[in-house]
Amino acid sequence: MATASAIDWPALEKALRRVLPPRAVVSKAQELLSYDCDGLTMDRHQPPLAVLPDSTEQVAAVLKLCHEQGVPFVARGSGTGLSGGALVEQEALLVITSRMRQVLSIDLNNQTIRVQPGVINSWVTRAVSGDGFYYAPDPSSQIACSVGGNVAENSGGVHCLKYGVTSNHVLELEVVLPDGTVTTLGGPLAEMPSLDLRGVFIGSEGTLGIATAITLRLLRQPEAVAVLLADFTSMEAAGEAVRLVTAAGILPAGMEIMDNFTIRAVDQMLEQELYPADAAAALLIELDGSSAEVELAAASTAELCRQAGARDVQVATTSEDRARLWQGRKSAISALGRLYPSYYLQDGVVPRSALPKVLARIDELSREHELPVANVFHAGDGNLHPLILYDGREEGVHQRVKDLGAAILRLCVDSGGSISGEHGVGADKRCFLDWMFSPADLETMQLVRKAFDPLQRANPGKLFPTPVSCGESSRRAQQIQLPDGVEVV
Amino acid sequence: MATASAIDWPALEKALRRVLPPRAVVSKAQELLSYDCDGLTMDRHQPPLAVLPDSTEQVAAVLKLCHEQGVPFVARGSGTGLSGGALVEQEALLVITSRMRQVLSIDLNNQTIRVQPGVINSWVTRAVSGDGFYYAPDPSSQIACSVGGNVAENSGGVHCLKYGVTSNHVLELEVVLPDGTVTTLGGPLAEMPSLDLRGVFIGSEGTLGIATAITLRLLRQPEAVAVLLADFTSMEAAGEAVRLVTAAGILPAGMEIMDNFTIRAVDQMLEQELYPADAAAALLIELDGSSAEVELAAASTAELCRQAGARDVQVATTSEDRARLWQGRKSAISALGRLYPSYYLQDGVVPRSALPKVLARIDELSREHELPVANVFHAGDGNLHPLILYDGREEGVHQRVKDLGAAILRLCVDSGGSISGEHGVGADKRCFLDWMFSPADLETMQLVRKAFDPLQRANPGKLFPTPVSCGESSRRAQQIQLPDGVEVV
Repeated sequence: MATASAIDWPALEKALRRVLPPRAVVSKAQELLSYDCDGLTMDRHQPPLAVLPDSTEQVAAVLKLCHEQGVPFVARGSGTGLSGGALVEQEALLVITSRMRQVLSIDLNNQTIRVQPGVINSWVTRAVSGDGFYYAPDPSSQIACSVGGNVAENSGGVHCLKYGVTSNHVLELEVVLPDGTVTTLGGPLAEMPSLDLRGVFIGSEGTLGIATAITLRLLRQPEAVAVLLADFTSMEAAGEAVRLVTAAGILPAGMEIMDNFTIRAVDQMLEQELYPADAAAALLIELDGSSAEVELAAASTAELCRQAGARDVQVATTSEDRARLWQGRKSAISALGRLYPSYYLQDGVVPRSALPKVLARIDELSREHELPVANVFHAGDGNLHPLILYDGREEGVHQRVKDLGAAILRLCVDSGGSISGEHGVGADKRCFLDWMFSPADLETMQLVRKAFDPLQRANPGKLFPTPVSCGESSRRAQQIQLPDGVEVV
Repeated sequence: MATASAIDWPALEKALRRVLPPRAVVSKAQELLSYDCDGLTMDRHQPPLAVLPDSTEQVAAVLKLCHEQGVPFVARGSGTGLSGGALVEQEALLVITSRMRQVLSIDLNNQTIRVQPGVINSWVTRAVSGDGFYYAPDPSSQIACSVGGNVAENSGGVHCLKYGVTSNHVLELEVVLPDGTVTTLGGPLAEMPSLDLRGVFIGSEGTLGIATAITLRLLRQPEAVAVLLADFTSMEAAGEAVRLVTAAGILPAGMEIMDNFTIRAVDQMLEQELYPADAAAALLIELDGSSAEVELAAASTAELCRQAGARDVQVATTSEDRARLWQGRKSAISALGRLYPSYYLQDGVVPRSALPKVLARIDELSREHELPVANVFHAGDGNLHPLILYDGREEGVHQRVKDLGAAILRLCVDSGGSISGEHGVGADKRCFLDWMFSPADLETMQLVRKAFDPLQRANPGKLFPTPVSCGESSRRAQQIQLPDGVEVV
């Protein structure tokens, strides 16, 4: 890798200004400050130089210059990522795609849309909703996050239980490789022969190149949607409701659980008792499909929730009523964020059957580490989002927060789960990757990475463990107390 | 690549007999004859030596020996593949997985099953149907084809319109790499961090290694299933019915069309008029879900078919009636196969909107090449299966058949489609891959391939175009008359 001293930044800037429009090169320190972190606000590094290209040709010209001058680069979309994937930790050029915001084409006959990477997730649905279509993956940040960022992280959302993650909805990618070559991965149809390089690029967190045009699948809007809100006096009962609904063969579009901590934070912020303040868990279930199907499924789901011990079950079918029930879940993170100066949002996954035990153990870990943890999660697919709340001004708190985060992820892995559901590994979790993959697995991944990026200049140091970044963390991780009494399923 | 003279077959056989059970090494010419072709019967090559390992350890031992002695290898499941992927064209060891037929574990709570690669596709559903589950991908050969082969080809089936292809249903793969290393790709959950090597392995047609244990997702059996059969006096009207059903937001489990040629062949074989002999097209639609939903969708679908011009619409809801309507489609290939000594089954894909024009043009190509072509296809996802019928004893007919096949695939590509939907590229279509991918795309694929298999000893010569195999074909392909009047969509 090029070291700081080997990069002639003024020469690169001059060359970049020759291939880019006047205001597409950002070099003033006060302007670069906006890019010193992404959604993982705990870690900050100001980039030495940033560019804002607006076309594939400009991205290719930028990466070609980087290649010629031996400069690493980091791609950034809207900067909403939660794992520090867009951090410029080492000397590298920041390539921001936020000016690439064109919808390139729409083909309603074949239900596809082609967009530039800076297009905001929710704009895709807006562009086609008048014709009765929508784009399924809906991360919580969907009004701000970019489609390019969604591709990098293979983002999910509350509806991925039924509709799958980003990879299930991307047909074709135009990609600029780290040497400036433009290539196409996948194709206009779901069925493409040969190696699925489209699939390997999606979720590669900026380590293989930069996607400059993305063809997405569109779905037809369902005829009817119903939302159920049930509250429970124990988390186990809420988990049992999820189990019963699944066992009945009902496939909701989404199933979300909020714990008591979250419920009280939401009610406090919204200044109304949207959810009962004494509920141990609130379960939101969204059902979609034909009117007849949704009506029937809503009735069965309500009955199963009661069977599991729900105190009250509300059902909303109009869009206003649905929005009201969703309001708390949608504002949960900001409601919790108001209680403490800072938060650290985790993203582990466990098999659905391990949920109750894992949640109970997270409670214990929270007490042991003396840091409050709120739980909001996609219950249908076991994707937890424990939110650790803290005050960053407290001496040594960052390390304590990270240790608790690591302990929670270790618990997920030991329960047969994963360190990331949809937020990516980035800078934040790279040192835990070897909890899940053997040295042979990681070596194969590195070889595949090098097939795209032989010099490893794309998002250097991210995603994979490195001796420099993980020496200390690995030692710490080995000291983490493995939770007792967690049955590995 | 090792040449014939460089391989010491007797030494390899001796070494193999040391690591494998007594009857797991096949070296007698008359026994090896059973493996001289797969489902692509046009091309035949007898392998020099074959092994039948029954465990991961044995596969690893075999590949380690191959690696040490510089011997290429070809993996074979049940040998039902239609693109010649299991052909031993060059000097290579054939590794047959048909003795690896154990169901390793079932976890109904988390809806997964883990199997060895030789397990037959339909056995997976059989193993869990008593508990109300099934495995979705269902290639036509499902009573014979192996799960390992399904992984290699990323197989589809009549239900992939709604449920997706093999890649959507495989969570984890235990893989023996070409040097004998055992590695794991993916994991027990759908959400796994880092590069999706699971996805790149699925559909790699045996060029990256051999899968030795496969974890599959199980789905709950739907409460109700209905099958509709509609007949039309023109193919356009059948296509319009498909368009109307899709536009109404109905997502059938499958939509299959048979042309008049196929209809008559089926009726003749079954000795009954299952489908009206004068129908230009028969459309089968399967709907599944809750009883209420299926009832409603069946009524709407029947009405939309009539609106498109269907003469008669039959609806079957009991399993006997459904089986009766499906019977013709299930026996279509064998019914057609009875009419001529040989057939060549193609597998192109076109955007749904291009279907009517492409089908009309295939009719013209059939007449121009003076070879009968029957059409049976997955109408919902535009996956055509034109069947070219011929008599192999006729002088020069193989080249004429291949030329017509190539012309049909060229038509698919020029209509915005693909040379393969679910049968793979194999030996049969490798020389057409560059119609769809640029040299840069193919180069990136080769680099990824080499990450798994640096010496390219796994299924050598398959999937990718090679100068030796494609010199002549490429010249021929360039001479193919591009169809006039096909609007590229």
